[in-house]
Amino acid sequence: MSVVSTQIQLVQRPHGWPEPSDFRTAEVTYGDVQPGHVRVRNEFISVDPYMRGRMMDTRSYVPPFQIGETMTGGAVGRVVESAVDDLPVGTLVLHQFGWRDIAQESADGFRAVPEPPAGHPSSVYLGVLGLTGFTAYVGLLDIAQFTENDVVFVSGAAGAVGTIVGQIAKLKGSPRVIGSAGSKEKVEVLTAKYSYDVAFDYKTAPVRRQLAQAAPDGIDVYFDNVGGDHLEAALDAFNDGGRAALCGAISQYNSTSRPEGPDNMANIITRGLTLRGFIVAKHSDLMSAFNREMSQWLADGEVDYDETVVDGIGNSADAFIGMMRGQNTGKMVVKV
Amino acid sequence: MSVVSTQIQLVQRPHGWPEPSDFRTAEVTYGDVQPGHVRVRNEFISVDPYMRGRMMDTRSYVPPFQIGETMTGGAVGRVVESAVDDLPVGTLVLHQFGWRDIAQESADGFRAVPEPPAGHPSSVYLGVLGLTGFTAYVGLLDIAQFTENDVVFVSGAAGAVGTIVGQIAKLKGSPRVIGSAGSKEKVEVLTAKYSYDVAFDYKTAPVRRQLAQAAPDGIDVYFDNVGGDHLEAALDAFNDGGRAALCGAISQYNSTSRPEGPDNMANIITRGLTLRGFIVAKHSDLMSAFNREMSQWLADGEVDYDETVVDGIGNSADAFIGMMRGQNTGKMVVKV
Repeated sequence: MSVVSTQIQLVQRPHGWPEPSDFRTAEVTYGDVQPGHVRVRNEFISVDPYMRGRMMDTRSYVPPFQIGETMTGGAVGRVVESAVDDLPVGTLVLHQFGWRDIAQESADGFRAVPEPPAGHPSSVYLGVLGLTGFTAYVGLLDIAQFTENDVVFVSGAAGAVGTIVGQIAKLKGSPRVIGSAGSKEKVEVLTAKYSYDVAFDYKTAPVRRQLAQAAPDGIDVYFDNVGGDHLEAALDAFNDGGRAALCGAISQYNSTSRPEGPDNMANIITRGLTLRGFIVAKHSDLMSAFNREMSQWLADGEVDYDETVVDGIGNSADAFIGMMRGQNTGKMVVKV
Repeated sequence: MSVVSTQIQLVQRPHGWPEPSDFRTAEVTYGDVQPGHVRVRNEFISVDPYMRGRMMDTRSYVPPFQIGETMTGGAVGRVVESAVDDLPVGTLVLHQFGWRDIAQESADGFRAVPEPPAGHPSSVYLGVLGLTGFTAYVGLLDIAQFTENDVVFVSGAAGAVGTIVGQIAKLKGSPRVIGSAGSKEKVEVLTAKYSYDVAFDYKTAPVRRQLAQAAPDGIDVYFDNVGGDHLEAALDAFNDGGRAALCGAISQYNSTSRPEGPDNMANIITRGLTLRGFIVAKHSDLMSAFNREMSQWLADGEVDYDETVVDGIGNSADAFIGMMRGQNTGKMVVKV
């Protein structure tokens, strides 16, 4: 039996800040479920900063979104029709066919996941138990080579990844975790809920000055979600041998001019620093360790998380734009 | 018996490009050689780019030179009076009491070295067999994690370190080594003598464009002696997973304003790049491997080197300033 799927498509590449008019809502009709395929009704779709990069037609580790085609991205849903044995109707699945209410594709593209832990929605597979949590885990422990006693600084700390980085750093023995965020409310939640020892609002004073005050003995690890003046401030605050995991540069994603780089790159030499960008997809060898540790922390109540939930597939573009503007605390998802 | 030593002292911290008037020549009288001490007549002293950094009073991994005191730095000389058993008169020694013709200090500060291989002057211990060669070796093999089949780009390629990096890269199996230097003559010597496959003169056209032409399939490793536009060009040319060893930023050492950083830092994230600064003194665990390999290469005629020799301790400041201006090919030394 055929079905109509509501899907969000990219109609033009955003210039600067993305606008609702860069997207359109389309109705796509799927025919009968073919052998080897499944039909999935999405429960939640993910909107993530990295998607801004895919909206541009530039070289990157993931190919750009195509104009006129439905946006893709992480989503969690439930099988409603199936023509394969190992994904029966009712199975909860994680997949990359986001930005639509119904996905119907080859079963290869879907991965069955257990029902979420009691009291948690299935959206945890997009957040703390998904790519978001995994990004925090890989970036802090592998890319930045965190070891206990490292003082850690996190930018974009109230975002989906940042809220988890701070908690992992404390669970793994950091004596001091410092976070930067863009409002008084976010700063408060960082220390009240997310284990941060100190937090500051980067909009109220220069990051360089605020970080120097927050880290009188310097920092050893920097987890960068922001780039720009935050990276510059970190380069000034680093102790010898410091390590930065460069995860995102949200401050620059919507810039229409080439951003100036840090004015203190020489510190990388004189202090023996390491800056490392990363692509979480290339670190799947750490996935089982992540799943084990993070599931346990969640079950034990050691890790907390927030979600900003936007209702309705038709509001996906607004959710994405709001996330880029920092309207979320924790993970931004669209409830289908 | 006392002796008069001619020494070069720093009289003021250079502002911008160092000037001869930032230094003075002083006569220092040493008394009798005390128990546990030696008197050494220097044969060669080293002038190196890193010394520019030590002339400023800023935080670094080595403390700044002190105003009014004799400059220090690598030097090789011969024991002429000795009050210790293990460094008898005639011993060739390597030490850090440079910028003077005679050094007289506790024997702890001197390390005996074998006579140089036949046909080579003792200055090789300041160059190819010394800190210079070791910097090239550590930077390429450890910091940049070079593996065979990596395409390598080296800036400041005709300098003391750069000439050695290119040769090690070829000996270790690089299919393509690209060098940048500041004159037609230097560019020619890179391909004629130092195993570079391609070289270009960065003064004749933008580095970004010349590197893109020289590396149509991208680069995997960048050895940076220069910083600035060279680092920016490398960030554009990197293949996914590329690694940069940041060794020096000679383009910026004499700048009186804060230099703009690269405008393409985002490539570090999208291509999963690693930038690592280093402090060769912290990698002494590799010293014995370096000594073994480099001595063998030199004995087998596999590694070549140039020296630019300035005569007379009184010309040390001019030698240093000339080296900063790129008047050397290979290692710049002062013959005492």
